[in-house]
Amino acid sequence: MKVLLIGAAGMIGRKFVQSLLDNPVPGLSGLMLADAVPGPDYPDANIPITSHTFNIADEGVFEPLIAERPDAVVHLAAIVSGEAETDFDKGYAVNFDATRNLFDAIRLQEGYTPRVVSASSIAVFGAPFPDTIPGDFHLTPLTSYGTQKAMGELLLCDYTRRGFMDGVALRLPTICIRPGKANLAASSFFSNILREPLAGQEAVLPVDDSVRHWHASPRSAVGFLRHALTMDTTPIGPRRALTMPGLSATVAEQIEALREVAGDRAVALIRREPDPFIEKIVSGWATRFDDSRARSLGFTSDASFREIIENHLEDEGLELV
Amino acid sequence: MKVLLIGAAGMIGRKFVQSLLDNPVPGLSGLMLADAVPGPDYPDANIPITSHTFNIADEGVFEPLIAERPDAVVHLAAIVSGEAETDFDKGYAVNFDATRNLFDAIRLQEGYTPRVVSASSIAVFGAPFPDTIPGDFHLTPLTSYGTQKAMGELLLCDYTRRGFMDGVALRLPTICIRPGKANLAASSFFSNILREPLAGQEAVLPVDDSVRHWHASPRSAVGFLRHALTMDTTPIGPRRALTMPGLSATVAEQIEALREVAGDRAVALIRREPDPFIEKIVSGWATRFDDSRARSLGFTSDASFREIIENHLEDEGLELV
Repeated sequence: MKVLLIGAAGMIGRKFVQSLLDNPVPGLSGLMLADAVPGPDYPDANIPITSHTFNIADEGVFEPLIAERPDAVVHLAAIVSGEAETDFDKGYAVNFDATRNLFDAIRLQEGYTPRVVSASSIAVFGAPFPDTIPGDFHLTPLTSYGTQKAMGELLLCDYTRRGFMDGVALRLPTICIRPGKANLAASSFFSNILREPLAGQEAVLPVDDSVRHWHASPRSAVGFLRHALTMDTTPIGPRRALTMPGLSATVAEQIEALREVAGDRAVALIRREPDPFIEKIVSGWATRFDDSRARSLGFTSDASFREIIENHLEDEGLELV
Repeated sequence: MKVLLIGAAGMIGRKFVQSLLDNPVPGLSGLMLADAVPGPDYPDANIPITSHTFNIADEGVFEPLIAERPDAVVHLAAIVSGEAETDFDKGYAVNFDATRNLFDAIRLQEGYTPRVVSASSIAVFGAPFPDTIPGDFHLTPLTSYGTQKAMGELLLCDYTRRGFMDGVALRLPTICIRPGKANLAASSFFSNILREPLAGQEAVLPVDDSVRHWHASPRSAVGFLRHALTMDTTPIGPRRALTMPGLSATVAEQIEALREVAGDRAVALIRREPDPFIEKIVSGWATRFDDSRARSLGFTSDASFREIIENHLEDEGLELV
């Protein structure tokens, strides 16, 4: 199985590549890695890897790669929610038009029906929500990013129904704990309040402890991609956009898990600094999904925030300070 | 109020124009009528009317019309479900790209935020359905037409949320009784079995009497457009795609209404000729919606099939034979 991965240099992309090299899916025979920026080298890989650097919003970038007829295409490339909101044209160009161009390049290859795994997001949903969001809840994005992802899901379902591809769209929860540095995303505090204290650093909590949100670890996200790459798609039927399983937790529950793993000293590093701007954004976010459909299709996720924290320490090779 | 109507020469477009001329909405000051084919002349109109014939899938066709800054834009133009299914490229070009081009022409006019009323369809939903489809049911189209309409709804909501327009998308029920000749649409029998016997002609019923479907008359459809043109949109909030109210009825109920209006002799003109192909298509269609949201926003629809039949006779100037 030759896999084309678009968005290979991002956080999830790199972890996915490393996972495939460490523990290949059955029949894995090669990787084609594409991103807007060069990714790491994989000198110890025992399968052929090619690297491709281009802007996915440019014309004709996918055709030469698709002409090599990879057995599977994994599409993770996007600009984030904040940038899609501030730069309207770029958001539609990168998050929607490029996705459509990719799908059309696949469609126009004669006699070619690859597995296509495309990252979507819970941002396709927007408040107000019921307490637990059902599997058949309507698409009501409240950002241009969510709109672009929802449109991509609809295309993927139609192109799959018409036999141009064998697509699966994965609506990812908020990824927590994101490794690396804090970023400017409104959601970054969910990771910061765990990652920074675990490293002996202070972190700011801008919302109330009672805020509830929907999370999955980077390890779970890689697991979603691996499963989507190899699963039998027949039982999915035509509704190919799947809300991935996650962990619904309050900030208070996150903090208690931190206390269990790293003690009161770590918890004391969280500084409460309410930010009405972030509080307002977060109040429109989903708190809990009925994820039984994805679970019945074999997707699994983290059991507890304690497990998320412990896996973070293990995956990032960290020791408690 | 100057209104640009795209799709003015179609069945609903013509009835809408006539309605606006007979009974103008408050402040109506002019009509700009566009379609791929020339429509009727309106020599007795007492407001200025301009006519514009072009293919909406062509580049740059909307800009000159939008440059005149009509106060409202009503977009009814589309190719039908069957053609969008057989001609993939044309379907996306006409039903999606042209809609996006129209919305972008509006977006790129500085300081211009017109009311935009766009026709959508219950084809954005696909089986399996609950018995009554709730207002927050997810978008699961099973045709390319439904996919294109769902993507257009998402664009309209995003462009409205961002302040580029004041949009409302109307998910129209199946229109019954369509005047004129029978067409090749799988749904045409719903109209045929009433219209033809009312005119003393035989009609074929290809499905079982128990088949239930969701209907609105041409008169109701015109009413939806009139209301959407003038309503206060503030109470709608960001969820701008509205499932229009309709009448849920079985074929048996349609036939009983025909008997009430036109007697046994008319009913005897319906010839049962089961068609497994049409039965299969129709089995995937929606039967009943919870339309309370649209009703609470002031949209109204037909009370009974008897009323639909009587209004058909009146609107088409027909007398029972």
